[in-house]
Amino acid sequence: MTEKDSRARTPVSGAKASAPGQPFTLAVDAMGGDRAPSIVLDGLDITADRHPEARILLVGDEAQLKKALRDHPKAARICSVRHADASIPMEMKPTAALRVRGSSMRGVMEAVAKGEAHGAVSAGNSGAMLALAKIIVGALEGISRPALVAVEPSARGDVVMLDLGANIACDARNLVEFAVMGEAFAQAALGLQAPTIGLLNVGDEDLKGDERLRQAAAQLRQSVLAPRFKGFVEGHDITAGKTDVVVTDGFTGNVALKTGEGALKLAFGLVRSVFKTNLITRLAYLLVRPGFDRMREWIDPRRYNGAVLIGLNGVVVKSHGGADGEAFAAAMDVAVDAVQNGLNDKIRHRLDQLGVGQGDDTPQNGRS
Amino acid sequence: MTEKDSRARTPVSGAKASAPGQPFTLAVDAMGGDRAPSIVLDGLDITADRHPEARILLVGDEAQLKKALRDHPKAARICSVRHADASIPMEMKPTAALRVRGSSMRGVMEAVAKGEAHGAVSAGNSGAMLALAKIIVGALEGISRPALVAVEPSARGDVVMLDLGANIACDARNLVEFAVMGEAFAQAALGLQAPTIGLLNVGDEDLKGDERLRQAAAQLRQSVLAPRFKGFVEGHDITAGKTDVVVTDGFTGNVALKTGEGALKLAFGLVRSVFKTNLITRLAYLLVRPGFDRMREWIDPRRYNGAVLIGLNGVVVKSHGGADGEAFAAAMDVAVDAVQNGLNDKIRHRLDQLGVGQGDDTPQNGRS
Repeated sequence: MTEKDSRARTPVSGAKASAPGQPFTLAVDAMGGDRAPSIVLDGLDITADRHPEARILLVGDEAQLKKALRDHPKAARICSVRHADASIPMEMKPTAALRVRGSSMRGVMEAVAKGEAHGAVSAGNSGAMLALAKIIVGALEGISRPALVAVEPSARGDVVMLDLGANIACDARNLVEFAVMGEAFAQAALGLQAPTIGLLNVGDEDLKGDERLRQAAAQLRQSVLAPRFKGFVEGHDITAGKTDVVVTDGFTGNVALKTGEGALKLAFGLVRSVFKTNLITRLAYLLVRPGFDRMREWIDPRRYNGAVLIGLNGVVVKSHGGADGEAFAAAMDVAVDAVQNGLNDKIRHRLDQLGVGQGDDTPQNGRS
Repeated sequence: MTEKDSRARTPVSGAKASAPGQPFTLAVDAMGGDRAPSIVLDGLDITADRHPEARILLVGDEAQLKKALRDHPKAARICSVRHADASIPMEMKPTAALRVRGSSMRGVMEAVAKGEAHGAVSAGNSGAMLALAKIIVGALEGISRPALVAVEPSARGDVVMLDLGANIACDARNLVEFAVMGEAFAQAALGLQAPTIGLLNVGDEDLKGDERLRQAAAQLRQSVLAPRFKGFVEGHDITAGKTDVVVTDGFTGNVALKTGEGALKLAFGLVRSVFKTNLITRLAYLLVRPGFDRMREWIDPRRYNGAVLIGLNGVVVKSHGGADGEAFAAAMDVAVDAVQNGLNDKIRHRLDQLGVGQGDDTPQNGRS
C-alpha cells in the first residue's frame, strides 16, 4: 500500500477547491437515490466543510427541502433551493423518464444546459440520467458517445476505467474517444500529468481480440496519444494498475467493474470468516485491526462513489443510488475536481489535436 | 466458507475414479508448458496415486521421456510412451502450429480422434491447441462453437463459467449451446444434479444488454433448460455464486475471469501487507495461520487449473502453461472427471432434447 498515495484522489480537489477566485455552482438532484433527500443533505454537510466556496443549486420538493435543511445547517449555508414538482422513480424506464415534466433530475440537467451550474450530481435512476443528460446537456462537439467513467482501486493506486455501461456496443472510434476522455479524467481526478492508457483485451499480443480493437489500437498509435498508449491490457492488469487508464466498451467495462468488486468482497468475506473462527483468531484480529481499518478505508466502495458521465457539455456525476452521506460527498468531490480542474477543457484540447470536432472525419478517427 | 464443501470438485473424481470396470486412457502432451516435460511427469506421479486405473499415452520425445520416467516411477507405472518428433513452441501462431508435422500436441489430438484415448491433456500453446483440437478431434454434432470452460471459486462454492476465450464474438445460438455445455460440465465436474444457469449481462432486468442476449434468454426460457435458467446475472453474481453456471461470450468471459483473479490477488496482497506491518501484526498472523492456510488452499489457482475445451468429439483439457506438478495433476483430474462422468454423453442427450444436431434449425436454436 506504500504507493497508493501517489495516486490518491482527495488531494487533487483538496488542493484546488479552496483556492480563491474560483467560485462554482453544482446543481444537485435532492430527490434521487434510495434515501433521498436525507442522505443528499448529509452528504452536502460534508461538502460544505470540504468546499466552502461551492454554491449548490438544490433541486427538489421545496417544502420538504426547506424543512430538512433546518437539520443540516452546514448544507444550508451553501444551498439555494429550486422547486421541482416531480421526481423520477428508481425503476422507471428511460423512455418514460424523458416524458416526466418538471422532475428534479430534469431540473439539474437544465441548470447545466442554461449555464446556471457547472455540473450536476444525482443519485437517481441511472438509465434516466443518461437519457436526460444526453438530450438536455448534450454531447461535447466531437464526442459521438458520452461514457461512464470512474476510479477503481489497484495495487499501484487508483485507476480510471471507462466505459462502465453507458454504451453496450462500441466501435473503434468510440474507443478512441474513450481514451481521450479517460486521459483527461485521470488528469483532472487523479492529478496525473501524463497518464498511461491501455485497451482492454483478452491478451496483450497485437493479434488478439477483434478487428474493432485492432483498429482502435492502430488509431491510438498514430495519434497524439501515442506516447501514452501502452497497447492491450488484460483483466488482471486493471487491479495490478498496469496503466492509469483502462479503455473498453460499456458491456465489458460494466462486467469487469462488478466482477472485480465481487471478487474483493469474496476475499474479504473469507478473511473475515477466518478471524471469526475462535477466541484466538478474534484476539489476532484485535492486533491487526488498525491496519485492517486503514485498508478497508482505502478500498471502501464509498470512497470510490461518483461516476462521471463524461463527454457532455458540462460535468454530470452519477452517485450510487444506495449511497450514504459519506459516499454522496465523495460523488460531490468528483464533480468539484472535474469542474475545478477543467475536465472538459482538457477533452476539447485533445479533440482539437486529434482533428476531431471540426465536422469531418480524418484518418485518425476512422470508420463509423 | 462453510458451504464450500457442498460444491467441492475433488470428491466427484475421487468417488468414481477408483470404481472397478472403468478403464480409460488419456493422451498427454509431454512437451507442452513452460517446464515440460518435468512438471508433466511430476503431475502424472500424483495422477498415478489418485487414479491408479488410468492409462496414460505419453506423447513426446521418446529418448527424453524414457530417461525422465526413471525418476518418476509412479508415473512410469501408468504411462506408455509414443514418440513425437516435434513440439509446438508457446508463442507460435495457431496457423503456423497447424503446419507442424509430428508434434506432440498433434499426437494427443490424433489419439483422441482415432479412439485410442478418451481425452487429451496439454499445458502447451492455447491458440495452437484450440486450432488443432477443432480440426483433428472435431466438434460434437450440433455444436457450432466449442468453448473453453472451467471452474472458479465463489462465496457459495465452485462455479462453472464459459466461454473463457475460445470465441471472441458469439451469437444467441452460441450462447444457448454454451448453456447446454455448461450444465453438462457442472454435472460432470461438480457432481450437481440440477445446476442453475445464468446469462452474464450488465443488469438483471429483461431489457438490459443487446438483442443477442435477449434472444438467447428467450430461447433458453422456451427450451428444456428453462427450469434451470435463472435469467441474467451480473459480474458480482459470479463470485457470489448466484448460479452454478455463468454463460457469456469468450471476450467477456476471459476479461471477467482475469479481473476476478486479479482482484483476489489485490485483496490478499493488501492483507499480507497488513500482517507485515510490525512485530505485533506478525504475531497475529501466527495465530490465524491455520485458517489462512486452509483459505489459501481453497482458492489456490493451482486447484482450479484445467479448462476443458468443451463441445468436441472427445475430452480436451488445457492446463496453464506455467503449471507446476500439483496444478497439472488438477488438470488431469478435470479430464478424468469429464471422461468418467460422461460429459459428452450428457451434452449429446441435451442436444437431442433441444432438437439440435439433427441437421435442421428448430425454433429453439433460432437464427444463425
